[in-house]
Amino acid sequence: MIIQPITDLVSLCHIKGITEAILSPGSRCAPITLAFTRHSGIHSRTISDERSAAFIALGIAQQLEKPVVLVCTSGSAAYNYAPAIAEAFFQRIPLLVITADRPPEWIDQWDGQTIRQTNIFGKHVKGSFTFPDEYGHNDKIWHANRIANEAINLACQYPPGPVHINIPLREPFYPDAEELFKFSDSVRDIGLLRSSKELSETARENLLLSIPKFKKVLIIPGQQKPNNSIKHLLEEIIRTRKATVVSDSISNMQSGNTINLHDHFLGMGTDPVFTPDLIISFGKSIISKSLKAFLRKSQAEHWHIQPDGYVPDTYQHLSKIIQSNETSFLRFLLENGNSSDHHFTKAWIDAERKIAHHLPSILSKAKFGEYSALAICLEAIPQESKLHVANSMAVRYVNLLGKRDQEIICNRGTSGIDGSNSTAVGCTFTTKDPVTLITGDMAFFYDRNAFWHNYKMSNLRIILLNNHAGGIFRLIDGPSKQPELEEYFETKQRLSAGYLAKDFGFEYHLANDKRSLEMGLKDFYRESINPKILEIETESPKNAEILKWIKSEISKI
Amino acid sequence: MIIQPITDLVSLCHIKGITEAILSPGSRCAPITLAFTRHSGIHSRTISDERSAAFIALGIAQQLEKPVVLVCTSGSAAYNYAPAIAEAFFQRIPLLVITADRPPEWIDQWDGQTIRQTNIFGKHVKGSFTFPDEYGHNDKIWHANRIANEAINLACQYPPGPVHINIPLREPFYPDAEELFKFSDSVRDIGLLRSSKELSETARENLLLSIPKFKKVLIIPGQQKPNNSIKHLLEEIIRTRKATVVSDSISNMQSGNTINLHDHFLGMGTDPVFTPDLIISFGKSIISKSLKAFLRKSQAEHWHIQPDGYVPDTYQHLSKIIQSNETSFLRFLLENGNSSDHHFTKAWIDAERKIAHHLPSILSKAKFGEYSALAICLEAIPQESKLHVANSMAVRYVNLLGKRDQEIICNRGTSGIDGSNSTAVGCTFTTKDPVTLITGDMAFFYDRNAFWHNYKMSNLRIILLNNHAGGIFRLIDGPSKQPELEEYFETKQRLSAGYLAKDFGFEYHLANDKRSLEMGLKDFYRESINPKILEIETESPKNAEILKWIKSEISKI
Repeated sequence: MIIQPITDLVSLCHIKGITEAILSPGSRCAPITLAFTRHSGIHSRTISDERSAAFIALGIAQQLEKPVVLVCTSGSAAYNYAPAIAEAFFQRIPLLVITADRPPEWIDQWDGQTIRQTNIFGKHVKGSFTFPDEYGHNDKIWHANRIANEAINLACQYPPGPVHINIPLREPFYPDAEELFKFSDSVRDIGLLRSSKELSETARENLLLSIPKFKKVLIIPGQQKPNNSIKHLLEEIIRTRKATVVSDSISNMQSGNTINLHDHFLGMGTDPVFTPDLIISFGKSIISKSLKAFLRKSQAEHWHIQPDGYVPDTYQHLSKIIQSNETSFLRFLLENGNSSDHHFTKAWIDAERKIAHHLPSILSKAKFGEYSALAICLEAIPQESKLHVANSMAVRYVNLLGKRDQEIICNRGTSGIDGSNSTAVGCTFTTKDPVTLITGDMAFFYDRNAFWHNYKMSNLRIILLNNHAGGIFRLIDGPSKQPELEEYFETKQRLSAGYLAKDFGFEYHLANDKRSLEMGLKDFYRESINPKILEIETESPKNAEILKWIKSEISKI
Repeated sequence: MIIQPITDLVSLCHIKGITEAILSPGSRCAPITLAFTRHSGIHSRTISDERSAAFIALGIAQQLEKPVVLVCTSGSAAYNYAPAIAEAFFQRIPLLVITADRPPEWIDQWDGQTIRQTNIFGKHVKGSFTFPDEYGHNDKIWHANRIANEAINLACQYPPGPVHINIPLREPFYPDAEELFKFSDSVRDIGLLRSSKELSETARENLLLSIPKFKKVLIIPGQQKPNNSIKHLLEEIIRTRKATVVSDSISNMQSGNTINLHDHFLGMGTDPVFTPDLIISFGKSIISKSLKAFLRKSQAEHWHIQPDGYVPDTYQHLSKIIQSNETSFLRFLLENGNSSDHHFTKAWIDAERKIAHHLPSILSKAKFGEYSALAICLEAIPQESKLHVANSMAVRYVNLLGKRDQEIICNRGTSGIDGSNSTAVGCTFTTKDPVTLITGDMAFFYDRNAFWHNYKMSNLRIILLNNHAGGIFRLIDGPSKQPELEEYFETKQRLSAGYLAKDFGFEYHLANDKRSLEMGLKDFYRESINPKILEIETESPKNAEILKWIKSEISKI
């Protein structure tokens, strides 16, 4: 049977600009699945492991900056979406999560694949809707259309995020051969015309009174997509010495003029010279622990710029929430800011330059390990590659290694290791450019089902830092001193990626010294039919030694 | 730093008889992890993928029939537990789920691995508790102890299930070298002395009035653990013709006198002779769709026996909820039930005998496919093996193949395919007997991280029915007629288990005809250091043909 309001939901997705759907197999969801697969304007792919499916959808939505549809059947399938939904919620990525359900009268009656799906994603969706379970009254058709509009609009509204539509369905689930889905472009669309959030007159007056007080202004762009107009404004602000910009790799705002190597020199005892009197932030989270700790210890005021929504007190000094888009505020700052205190600006620039000058030669003297190997790899990655970085050590190494020209993507909403492969796979579905994933072994094997499907990912390149353990635990003080380190924290694991590569038909190269690494990189970005894995095998204790050695060398410069 | 109330929580787990904990790596959970690993009375294992970790815990708790502890760090880790928690909730398996969390003031402040963990498992836990975040006031120590008592007691109380304790933790997470965990056997234990739920006098009087009305009584034992006293009572009830017992394989109540082959003869047009006037059920769900449909169509009354808790109206005719343990009621029925209508009893027995007589020869004439292969395998499985069966076709084939002597285990709480491997792995941690897992390829590869750890599972034997697809979709009418069958329903997948076996060091044998299957079975149960996989490769369309052919042969007898 074809249910017209479900067909209309799919039409509305198309009208509102949704182009991609990730489906997972199931019978109860068949009416939804078939409506999506038969709509010519929506590209549907099927992924069997719902945990990976949801992270793949996230990886697509990250790039497209519009909602991607997820469809799964009833039962625990929906719960396998949950890790990616939490990530999307905090990373502010729009997802339209559609779950098939049994009709209400059959919940809790011990039939298969039936759980309590209403509001199942709790506080990690922007909204949770339940479709009517039948359409005997006209108001129910109106209700379904309204829900569809509300849900998609809500997913897109700033801050974007995941929304959930639960759809109860009764048999029959399948249309007869002669039944046709009737898609229509005239399904009612409640259009969302978004406001432009400019600084108000009152805000300008308030800021004009406040700004003159500050001579040591740090701008901290949080995680965001590359944005040339913001980047250009930041460059101008730096050039005119209106502020110092400290940018983590995930901010995608690094340049030759921003501070990028702060992780090497903050928390080393010389912090007072760097202390700001005003922190201006925008975007989402930052990754540098030393920067966070440093700013929390300071007495600086903190202003956060954003168009709307909740603002966290990341540095414990939040004093102004400025409801404005970033460019409007930055333009105002450029026009009305003070020139910075010379000593303050110089301290940051000098520290940055010193590290930038010495780091390459220190790295070249370091023993072979994941730190130096990654430095070599980063130089080989083409500028047009998207650069996905997994959580735990991969993203921390990338951040330590300074300015990157590629778009950097990392799941810093929840900072889990659970969906890095899938997120990168989703990215490959959106671009012909190379997509490079830098990952550790724990994240990589955790999410190996990312590759368990039949779609091409020719442009995927994986740099796998395999130390056969969660090496991060050896690098932090507490666990490294516990007798339980290897079993309960690092959790030594013996897998290498060779068999995985055979399973999925990936090209594979193993590197365990500089020479084999350079060999592996030689053709790594040459076009291929299949994805490629470059596995860099190192020993966790040696990596810890090298990190320590580099830190100590840097402290001497 | 050592937090005494957490140490006391672990002592209390021990006092209350908990012996097993499954931990997943993390830093915030270190105070909990270390307290568990250092307690000599609790066996702690670490599993990196939390989704598998939780199903492994479930697999242990299924066998031990007491709570197993789960510990994970803050962030999305907890959400990876969710599928197993839903399964445990509906399957009524006790779990004590302990999640580390940031303290409340740091939630939503964009620090890493921080989500909204309070009540995160929604309606799929029996209770959700939050530990104090510090212990400055004595009442907070009392509170922590009370929560620990309440949570463990609640997990055990009928019906058992998962409970969640969320523990906010501030740094430092690690003890100094000289700090020692002080476990104590005198931590206050609020002992739970459980009632014995016998039939009350009023209930007996009520039943004495009702029972004489019924001459066609069907007893349907739902999913449960093997139980000799129940089984013995059922045998007596059958012998004295007080009722007919229809038992799915997951009921673990099958005998030579119960009806086990009902899936072959119900819904074939001869149902009126089988129609009961009273259905008596106990235990959890049943698997047979034809039995459910048949009973829903009947006009029979339905009585459900259970000590306590929610009772579903599975057959839409529920008329009495009898709060009693099963043995007390069955003993009463044995003493006070009528003799059954002769024609009714005979109809069931004849139908069963006819199938039992002809099925083996039909199977022996069937082409080689998963149906006949599984029939051969089932004969080879030692009686003392635990028999885990994955959802979808594996459990349906086992049910079609009639009486089993082994304990049958299947995740029929939510009937998902998501944790079958892990549940079987958990079982291997509880017994030296062989543990056989019968699974399809979708369930098997979905949950391959079940094997990603360093613990011995020498007694694990996996029979993998690999048709490179979700073959069930070809066997049901609707999807098999859709052009989307292979891509969006079956989701063809090309993996075989050979490389997986190499990755994890499993013994591996591939069978694709009768001869190679018999070869593979020859030494399959011989003791070994490593687990063994017997992969049976078949083609999905052929399996569908064979199933159809067997059905048609049976209809002719």
